[in-house]
Amino acid sequence: MLRTHEAGSLRAEHAGQSVTLTGWVARRRDHGGVIFIDLRDASGVAQVVFREGEMAERAHKLRAEFVIKVTGEVSRRPEGSENPDLATGAIEVYVSELEVLNEAAPLPFQVDDHLEVGEEARLKHRYLDLRRTAPAKAMRLRSEANRIARTVLHAEKFVEVETPTLTRSTPEGARDFLVPARLRPGSWYALPQSPQLFKQLLMVGGLERYYQIARCYRDEDFRADRQPEFTQLDIEMSFVEQDDVIALAEKVVKALWKELADHEIGTIRRIPFAEAMAKYGTDKPDLRFDLELTELTEYFKDTTFRVFQAPYVGAVVMPGGASQPRRTLDGWQEWAKQRGHKGLAYVLIGEDGTLGGPVAKNLTDAERDGLAKAVGANPGDCIFFAAGDRNGARALLGAARNEIAQRVGLIDENAWSFVWIVDAPLFEAVENIGDDVAVGSGKWTALHHAFTSPTPEWIDRFEEDPGNALAYAYDIVCNGNEIGGGSIRIHRADVQQRVFNIMGLTEEEAQEKFGFLLDAFKYGAPPHGGIAFGWDRIAMLIGGYDSIREVIAFPKSGGGYDPLTAAPAPITPQQRKEAGVDAKPDQKA
Amino acid sequence: MLRTHEAGSLRAEHAGQSVTLTGWVARRRDHGGVIFIDLRDASGVAQVVFREGEMAERAHKLRAEFVIKVTGEVSRRPEGSENPDLATGAIEVYVSELEVLNEAAPLPFQVDDHLEVGEEARLKHRYLDLRRTAPAKAMRLRSEANRIARTVLHAEKFVEVETPTLTRSTPEGARDFLVPARLRPGSWYALPQSPQLFKQLLMVGGLERYYQIARCYRDEDFRADRQPEFTQLDIEMSFVEQDDVIALAEKVVKALWKELADHEIGTIRRIPFAEAMAKYGTDKPDLRFDLELTELTEYFKDTTFRVFQAPYVGAVVMPGGASQPRRTLDGWQEWAKQRGHKGLAYVLIGEDGTLGGPVAKNLTDAERDGLAKAVGANPGDCIFFAAGDRNGARALLGAARNEIAQRVGLIDENAWSFVWIVDAPLFEAVENIGDDVAVGSGKWTALHHAFTSPTPEWIDRFEEDPGNALAYAYDIVCNGNEIGGGSIRIHRADVQQRVFNIMGLTEEEAQEKFGFLLDAFKYGAPPHGGIAFGWDRIAMLIGGYDSIREVIAFPKSGGGYDPLTAAPAPITPQQRKEAGVDAKPDQKA
Repeated sequence: MLRTHEAGSLRAEHAGQSVTLTGWVARRRDHGGVIFIDLRDASGVAQVVFREGEMAERAHKLRAEFVIKVTGEVSRRPEGSENPDLATGAIEVYVSELEVLNEAAPLPFQVDDHLEVGEEARLKHRYLDLRRTAPAKAMRLRSEANRIARTVLHAEKFVEVETPTLTRSTPEGARDFLVPARLRPGSWYALPQSPQLFKQLLMVGGLERYYQIARCYRDEDFRADRQPEFTQLDIEMSFVEQDDVIALAEKVVKALWKELADHEIGTIRRIPFAEAMAKYGTDKPDLRFDLELTELTEYFKDTTFRVFQAPYVGAVVMPGGASQPRRTLDGWQEWAKQRGHKGLAYVLIGEDGTLGGPVAKNLTDAERDGLAKAVGANPGDCIFFAAGDRNGARALLGAARNEIAQRVGLIDENAWSFVWIVDAPLFEAVENIGDDVAVGSGKWTALHHAFTSPTPEWIDRFEEDPGNALAYAYDIVCNGNEIGGGSIRIHRADVQQRVFNIMGLTEEEAQEKFGFLLDAFKYGAPPHGGIAFGWDRIAMLIGGYDSIREVIAFPKSGGGYDPLTAAPAPITPQQRKEAGVDAKPDQKA
Repeated sequence: MLRTHEAGSLRAEHAGQSVTLTGWVARRRDHGGVIFIDLRDASGVAQVVFREGEMAERAHKLRAEFVIKVTGEVSRRPEGSENPDLATGAIEVYVSELEVLNEAAPLPFQVDDHLEVGEEARLKHRYLDLRRTAPAKAMRLRSEANRIARTVLHAEKFVEVETPTLTRSTPEGARDFLVPARLRPGSWYALPQSPQLFKQLLMVGGLERYYQIARCYRDEDFRADRQPEFTQLDIEMSFVEQDDVIALAEKVVKALWKELADHEIGTIRRIPFAEAMAKYGTDKPDLRFDLELTELTEYFKDTTFRVFQAPYVGAVVMPGGASQPRRTLDGWQEWAKQRGHKGLAYVLIGEDGTLGGPVAKNLTDAERDGLAKAVGANPGDCIFFAAGDRNGARALLGAARNEIAQRVGLIDENAWSFVWIVDAPLFEAVENIGDDVAVGSGKWTALHHAFTSPTPEWIDRFEEDPGNALAYAYDIVCNGNEIGGGSIRIHRADVQQRVFNIMGLTEEEAQEKFGFLLDAFKYGAPPHGGIAFGWDRIAMLIGGYDSIREVIAFPKSGGGYDPLTAAPAPITPQQRKEAGVDAKPDQKA
C-alpha cells in the first residue's frame, strides 16, 4: 500500500506517530504561509499541515482534487482548535514529505456536499460526484443491503444461482431488449425482463431454494424513475404456500431495516387487494397516515347532480381544507387534469357546518345534510369527490389522499409503514394496461404475470369469472412504494394452459413462446412460489434518497441515455454487418 | 411448508415420529405387494414403504419423477436391511397418507447418476439433469464459492458495486454484443466485455475497494469451452502496488480451496513471463510436474541439418519414450499437425545410449554425443524437438510437455499447483493475435488490455522498445489454467495516450472510444490496480468438472445456442420495427 494509515482513522492516540496518507486535496486554507489541507480518502478527512518553507511553497501549488501522498507526524491540535464535528478533529499531521500522485484540471463542479449541481452534470462526471459524501454512502449502503440479505438467505439454506441473460424473448409485460446473434445470423437473443422462467425451471430441477441478486431489463418508455436495467432480489422456493414465502420475505426485510435503518419492523398487516382499492384507491397504500376514501355511490344513487350519476362516486376528506384560498382550489383542478381527469369536485364545510363551493348548490338538502357525517368530515374540512368508472375515480382519490397528506403534514417522515397486499385479481382487462405488452390476444391479461397460480378456491373455475378470480399473489408495500411482489406459481401444465387460454394464447402460440416451460411441467414440477424485491427502490427508501438513480453507480438519465459514456451510440457498418443484423434467419437452423 | 421434514435429514432418532415428506419418486421396488420408494428431495433420499392394501395399490400407479407428499411413521429398518451407504439408511417411513402433487410423463432420460446421456439432451432438459447428484452439487458449490469470496472481501472492506451492462461499445479484445436502443433509433448499446472501465471510474470516484461478481459478454467464435456470457469476480483497489493486489487475491484463492477442496495452499511462486515461456512454452504452465523445455538454438548454431537452422530450436524429453512403437510416434506427427505444425521431430535414446529415429542420422557425431546431456535425457527416453520462430516452436513444445505428462502419468490428479506469472510484455505484435480484435490500427496491441500500466522501469520509455517493454501485470495459474489476471492500471492521461499511440490510436480516435475515461483521468485519478478471476473456471476446477458448462445453470452449447429455450430465435417484423434496428441515427442526438 502507498499509505500506512487511512486518513479518517487518525485519533488523538496516534499523536507522535509518523504516518503516510494518500488521498485527494479536499480543501486548502492559507494561514499566513502555513497551508492547511483537508486530505480526503474513502475513510474520511484529516487535516494536514505544511509549515513555512519549502513544504508550504510546494503545497501552495496544490489544487482541489490533486491526488497526493504525504508523510508526517501526527500531532494533537492546539487547544481550542479541535473540531469535535470531525472524527479526526483532535489531530493534524505535520507534513515532512509530499508527493503529487496525480494532478487535477479545474473541475466542472466542486466536490462539495453542499453544492447544488444539475443531475446531468453529476452523471456526466459521476466519478467526481461519487467523491461526495452522500453518493459514496449510497454505494456502501447498497453493498451492505446485499450482504445482509445474503446472510439471511444463506442461513435459510438458499442456493445462489446465476441465470442466463442472453436468452429467448418471452414477453412478461414489457418489451424485450434484443441482441443480434452473430453466429446465427438473423436470430436474436433477448435480455430477460426477470429470471422468472429460469427460476421456475430451477424448481422443476429440484433446487428447492434459489436466490439471485439479478439484473433485469425492460425496454419501457421511460416513466419517471425507471431504468432500462434494474436489479431485483429474486427468490423462489419449492413445497411452499403463501405464508412460507411471506415469512421468509419478512426475515429479509426486517434484517435490512434493522441493520441499515435501525428500525424494528413489527407485525406486518395483510390487506386484501379489494380492500386496499376501496379504502386507499391504490394497491400501494401509504399507511403512515390513516385517511381513507369513502364510497358514496349508494349515497348519491338518486342524485339529480349529473356529475354524480356515475357507476362510482367516492370522496376523501382534507382536514382543515375549507380554508384553502380559491387559487389553491383551482390548483387542485389543474393537478387532477395532469392526471387525465376533468377536475376534482369539492365541497367546503364552513365552521358553522354549512357547505360551500360550486358542487354544494347542485345537491339536495338531504344530500347536503348527511354528507359530512357520511364521509366523516368536520367543520373546516374540504371534501374532494371523484365520480366515474370505479378504477379511474379511485385512482384519482388515492392520489388526492397522498397529496392531502403531504400538504396537511399528515406524514411522519421518520415513520415506516409496511403492508402486504394479498388476494389480488388473477387477470385484468387488456383495455386497462396502458403501455404494457399483453402476452396473448385475449380480453384478459395477467395482473401479476402469466405464471401466477389462481387461489385454491379459483383454480378449478377461474374461467367462469376471470374478472373476479383471485391470484395466489402478494405484494409488499413500504410507505406507499411497492418494494416486492410474488406469488405461488402454477406448477401444472393443464392449469398453465387454461390461464393462457383466458389470455388468448392458443396451445400452439403458448408452445412457441413458452414451450420449454410447459415441457418442464410435464416431468414432475413441484409446487413452488417466490418473490422478487425491487432492490434499487429498497436501497433508495432505506437511504432516504429521492430517486433510484441515487443508489445506482452509473444510472441512465431520461430516454435511457448515459451522460457519462454517451451510450447508446451509432455502430459502424462493419459492426452491423458482422453482427448479422440484416441477415435473414436460416430456415434450417 | 407442505412437509414437516426434509427426506435426507431422517435418522434413527426420528423412529416413532410421524413425518410428512415431499419429493420425487426416484426409484420404486415392488416386493410382493409391498412397494418401496426412494423419495428424493434436495436434501437426499429416504425410503418410504407402502404396505399391502389401498396404499400399495395407489403406490403401484406412481411412476418415476412423480412429485408426491407422504405422511407416515419413521421406523428403524429391520435388522440386516440397513444401508450404511445412505445417510438415511437406518430408517424407513411407513406411509399412511399419499398425495400426488404432480405427475410426470415418461422421461426423455432417467434421472440416474450413472446414466450416460448426451450433453445436448441434458441441456435441452436441464431441469431433469439438475435433479442428478453431480449437477445439483455443482450449483451448490458455486453458490458457496460466491459466499466464501464475499466473506473475505467484506472483511477487507470491499464495496460491492453493480456496474452497467447496457453501455458503450469499447473493444477490449473481442467483439461486443450489441443492443438496439428503441428510444434512440439507430443507436445501440453494447454489453460489456468486462466492468474494466467502470471499475476504473469507481477508483477515480474515490471508492478505493470495489468488487463485483460480474456478468461479462464476449461475442467470440466459440472455441472449446467458451460461453458468450460468463462470470468473473472483479476486484479493483486504489493506492496499491502489485504486491497488495496479489496478497488480496491470494486470500480469496486460499479461502476457496481451503473451504471447498480442503486444501491448504502454501506460498505461491512467482515466475516471470519470459521464464515461463522459456521453461514451459506457455504463460499457463502446469506445475504439477517438473518437466522443462531446453533451448538448443546455441547448441545447433552450426548444424548442417536444415530443419534445425532456425531462429529457435528447443526440445522436451519424454521419459521412457524411446520404447514407443512406430505407430505412436507417427501419431505424434498427426498431433503436431492438428496444432498447425509440420510435425514433431524426435530422437530416441536406446538403452545403450545410441540415438535412433530419422533425425539422428542428420546430426553430426558431436551433435549426437552431447545431445542427451544437453537436454537432460537418459537411456530409454525420447527427445522431441521444435524449430522455427520462437513463439510458435515454444508453444508446440509446451503442448507436447502437457501431452507427455498425461501419457507418462507425471500428473498427480489430486495435486494443486498455483503460480503467478509476472512481468509480462506490455504489447504484442498484432500479427500474432489471431481472432481477437485489435483496438487500434498500429503494429502493436496490448497483451493484457489497453489500460495496463508499464512497469516503473518502462513507464517513461516503452516507446523505445515496445516489444520488450514490461507490463505491471500478473496472472494466476492453477494446474495449467489461467484462473485470474490483473494489473496495475495507468492512472495518468498522458501515459494512457502514449500507450494508445503505440497501438495506433490517434488522440481523436482515443477520445471517440474512451473519451470518458481520459476525461476522468484529468480530474485526479488515484494509482490503482486490480484483478479479475474467471469464476466459471474456478468453480469447474475446484469441483473437478471437465467443462465450465457443468458449473453454469443454463449454459449455451456450440455456437451460442441454448437447447433448452432454443435461443437465439428470429424476431417478428414488429419487434424489429419497434426496436429501431433499421433506423438511421439521429445526427442531432
